[in-house]
Amino acid sequence: MRGRFIVLEGGDGSGKTTLAQTLAAALAADGQSVVATREPGGTPAGQALRALLLAADGPAFEPETELLLMTAARVQHVRQVIAPALARGAIVVCDRFVGSTLAYQGSGAGLDTARILALHRDFADDLWPDVTLLLDLPPELALARGRARLAASAANEGRFEARGLSFHARVRAGFLALARALPGWTVLDATQPADALLATARASLGA
Amino acid sequence: MRGRFIVLEGGDGSGKTTLAQTLAAALAADGQSVVATREPGGTPAGQALRALLLAADGPAFEPETELLLMTAARVQHVRQVIAPALARGAIVVCDRFVGSTLAYQGSGAGLDTARILALHRDFADDLWPDVTLLLDLPPELALARGRARLAASAANEGRFEARGLSFHARVRAGFLALARALPGWTVLDATQPADALLATARASLGA
Repeated sequence: MRGRFIVLEGGDGSGKTTLAQTLAAALAADGQSVVATREPGGTPAGQALRALLLAADGPAFEPETELLLMTAARVQHVRQVIAPALARGAIVVCDRFVGSTLAYQGSGAGLDTARILALHRDFADDLWPDVTLLLDLPPELALARGRARLAASAANEGRFEARGLSFHARVRAGFLALARALPGWTVLDATQPADALLATARASLGA
Repeated sequence: MRGRFIVLEGGDGSGKTTLAQTLAAALAADGQSVVATREPGGTPAGQALRALLLAADGPAFEPETELLLMTAARVQHVRQVIAPALARGAIVVCDRFVGSTLAYQGSGAGLDTARILALHRDFADDLWPDVTLLLDLPPELALARGRARLAASAANEGRFEARGLSFHARVRAGFLALARALPGWTVLDATQPADALLATARASLGA
């Protein structure tokens, strides 16, 4: 029996990564077989590409280059991690997937959605989540959270946070449009405290 | 006046890199404006992707991932280096370009040529060389040269050399098929000494 592919989407600072971790832990505590993973990342190649993409002092990428690198990391991730886990019946909880590419490289950076979908179909085996939980947050609040996190950490992940409010507003609008257009998306109010968010997420999953 | 885009293609160990350097130096010594570059590489992003792709102990890549990463590096290279140089009238001498992707990821690794061409058209602005010099060498000899070079250096570029004779034979056949099919390709006998090869290359360029 094929497992269940659950994806958390949302802007930077939406609490998505925390929810992915607590949700995976809660499902595992219920005795379910859970694979918690993320994008970009999830494989050694994906981690190396993540480091390259998120380095604040890294190369300036053309939007098309970002799209190709995100898709390259996704091919590795789908083939080597996600599809095998689903095939053995596990629940996969993934922090970002193709929805983020559509929102960031599409709505945010202005690339044509059709190009992103064509790459996903031709290279990432056209794999789509069974369920997507979108953590929605006003961009002003998301940006403030992101800046606070950046200031508090030595993590070199400032590239995305540095893109400014109008970029994040386009990304948020893109995510909300995806939630209306695609099957299996649920919008969660990300201003909730983490434990309330987890309870809402579990309820929406029926888990 | 647009410059001239000269690409050197060939298998590992064919002497292509040496010829690219001596040819660029000879053209520059004639007083021409020359940009010598290579793929993967040619930009900071390309160099980082080159290191990732060629690391002998690096991640195991799906062929599709290699194709996307090569194309990503090429997008950066075309937009940031090659097209601007051609626009200002320079001669660009490039060590490998899309022909290598067609020969290695297509003929060698078995990916469909149409997918490679579609990516090149959709992402790398469908830029093609004015002249391509193919350094042709029997794969047995190329492999022996490659192994000797690998043994003699600390460079961690063993991934491609490790693919074996049948892979290199498919790559060579792929290059020769490209030379028959595409405009502007010249096949050079790479068993010639380096200075004879340079003279032949210059003669075929009319330079």
